[in-house]
Amino acid sequence: MKIENDLTELLNIKFPVIQAPMAGGITSSELVAEVSNAGGLGMIGAGYMSASQIQRQIQEVRHLTNHSFGINLFIPAKYSMKNIEKAKSILKPISEKLNIPDEYVDLPNEQRDLKSFHEQISVVIKERVPVCSFTFGLPPKEIVSLLKETSIVVIGTATSVEEAIMNEKAGMDAIVLQGIEAGGHRGTFLGQAHDSLIGLMALIPQVVDNVNIPVIAAGGIMDGRGLAAAKCLGAKAVQMGTAFVTSKESGANEIYKNAILSSIETDTLLTNTFTGKLARGIKNSFMKEMEQFRNEIPDYPIQNSLTKGIRRTSADQQNPEYMSLWSGQSPRLAKPLNVKELLERIMFEVEVIGKNF
Amino acid sequence: MKIENDLTELLNIKFPVIQAPMAGGITSSELVAEVSNAGGLGMIGAGYMSASQIQRQIQEVRHLTNHSFGINLFIPAKYSMKNIEKAKSILKPISEKLNIPDEYVDLPNEQRDLKSFHEQISVVIKERVPVCSFTFGLPPKEIVSLLKETSIVVIGTATSVEEAIMNEKAGMDAIVLQGIEAGGHRGTFLGQAHDSLIGLMALIPQVVDNVNIPVIAAGGIMDGRGLAAAKCLGAKAVQMGTAFVTSKESGANEIYKNAILSSIETDTLLTNTFTGKLARGIKNSFMKEMEQFRNEIPDYPIQNSLTKGIRRTSADQQNPEYMSLWSGQSPRLAKPLNVKELLERIMFEVEVIGKNF
Repeated sequence: MKIENDLTELLNIKFPVIQAPMAGGITSSELVAEVSNAGGLGMIGAGYMSASQIQRQIQEVRHLTNHSFGINLFIPAKYSMKNIEKAKSILKPISEKLNIPDEYVDLPNEQRDLKSFHEQISVVIKERVPVCSFTFGLPPKEIVSLLKETSIVVIGTATSVEEAIMNEKAGMDAIVLQGIEAGGHRGTFLGQAHDSLIGLMALIPQVVDNVNIPVIAAGGIMDGRGLAAAKCLGAKAVQMGTAFVTSKESGANEIYKNAILSSIETDTLLTNTFTGKLARGIKNSFMKEMEQFRNEIPDYPIQNSLTKGIRRTSADQQNPEYMSLWSGQSPRLAKPLNVKELLERIMFEVEVIGKNF
Repeated sequence: MKIENDLTELLNIKFPVIQAPMAGGITSSELVAEVSNAGGLGMIGAGYMSASQIQRQIQEVRHLTNHSFGINLFIPAKYSMKNIEKAKSILKPISEKLNIPDEYVDLPNEQRDLKSFHEQISVVIKERVPVCSFTFGLPPKEIVSLLKETSIVVIGTATSVEEAIMNEKAGMDAIVLQGIEAGGHRGTFLGQAHDSLIGLMALIPQVVDNVNIPVIAAGGIMDGRGLAAAKCLGAKAVQMGTAFVTSKESGANEIYKNAILSSIETDTLLTNTFTGKLARGIKNSFMKEMEQFRNEIPDYPIQNSLTKGIRRTSADQQNPEYMSLWSGQSPRLAKPLNVKELLERIMFEVEVIGKNF
């Protein structure tokens, strides 16, 4: 298979493999740097990070690699403050079960989110991070211009053809296309998340027929077969999340890694109960107990703040049942390899497929 | 791309493309025969047909082609007779809107279904149809043995790894793997249909790692890109439905064809409201009005019988809003070609992909 293309050139990487910028501590500096050292594009999942945390991690990554790398930011959401007291009472039995004392919850607010986003952007520009991707919407035109003036490659996220077209119009250099197979949060920003649940086999060709910028396929891709298939469908690269969660260098804790390594393809479900936004994770007690309340869950990121203590305590107690165990639909393909082995294996598989094609 | 493999040899076809055996009059003898004449495998969707109808169509197809072809049967369902009166009252406002007089509904019964299934099998064996596939479950061992003794190739349907393994154990020669992208009824027979909604990008590699029989990918595949991708993932052939519905030779009426040709990837949804079984179709008034009752719908095939008059009348009135408009997730790729052009185009696209791989 032809490995290099306009996108690998643009991103200045050897292999068309991008490590998904998973937020919440998974994308350790070791993970990001090792992916870039191994020929892919390491990405810092900075959605929940402050500007100073971002700055520190960029410096750490630069200490560990001379290669290109990227960062991902969340477009700030608009949300209503409804259902908060109701949600607290719904979550109370779970907090009690885990022996979590009543604790202060730092509720988000839109003003502060916006301020934080602008501070994040300032650091990305100041540090001249080579690549910056966005999820949950489109950045304002001024920000896109600022990033491009600094020679930062900008990448958007889409879950439908219309969202992909909007990304192109907004000036994005490339788009991550998120199929229904993907683990973690849905990137849908047009209409309801439930309206854009398209499998990659259908999504990729319909998008590439309608945009002129390179497309990166994301969702359920874990090996050379997925990379080769994505390229046949018209994608220029793949973005892999779950495959890197179980890697040796990932910042995920062992309970989470083991949950993926012992799951099968029918074990994941889409739920809004952890954060208020639809996301794919491995079914556990939290999801089962909360599913009946799915229409009463506060907006993202309010629910995310309300469940933070439960998720953290569950992890501290080595209990996978009340953590968010984000995973794509291919957990059977997950392996506890180090990043270099994983990348080498993928590129070897692609070579074999190419020979037998 | 290498076109021939053990599966094309087994099925005695030139190209690894199977026309999905869509029930309900889509698979006209012209469609089935033309697909086989063009190098693929035409399939009679015989699920709802009587033994004598089947016999007649087999003879028609044989009159139009000397090539191999196949037939698909439904494994008879077990169902409760609950919710029938409730469903009738829910459907009444729609019947009235369409001016449908109170009509006699021939409700299904399990005994009769079973008798009919055995009669269908007898014709298939008597006529020595080259290929027989099954949906909605596994045929009993005796029937598999009888078919194989008659040198009929038997193919099962799976939506998960576990179902694929069960198909292999039941003696199937190959398996159709149905991804979440697929139009029409879900073939799930293990657990609930909602538990097996896996995208092909994730489903194919996880299945081929766990079975030894050839796998046929189905769902959202409409062109050479999909065929090439499915092969990279480990499938030996593809089964395409929606792509053939809009072909010139298909038995679908023009309203249905036009609905597909004017739809986009976010227009389809999974619903149980037409037949009692989860199926993917283009959103219309029937689906929107009935969605609130989804938990009160009688089992398949009872609801199928109850809505038959509505669907038929809606079609007679040239009104797409109360018909079942089954479609996969790639309607943007649908084209009003004839079968020969469609197959030639697919194989040309595959050749180009192979050259640039």
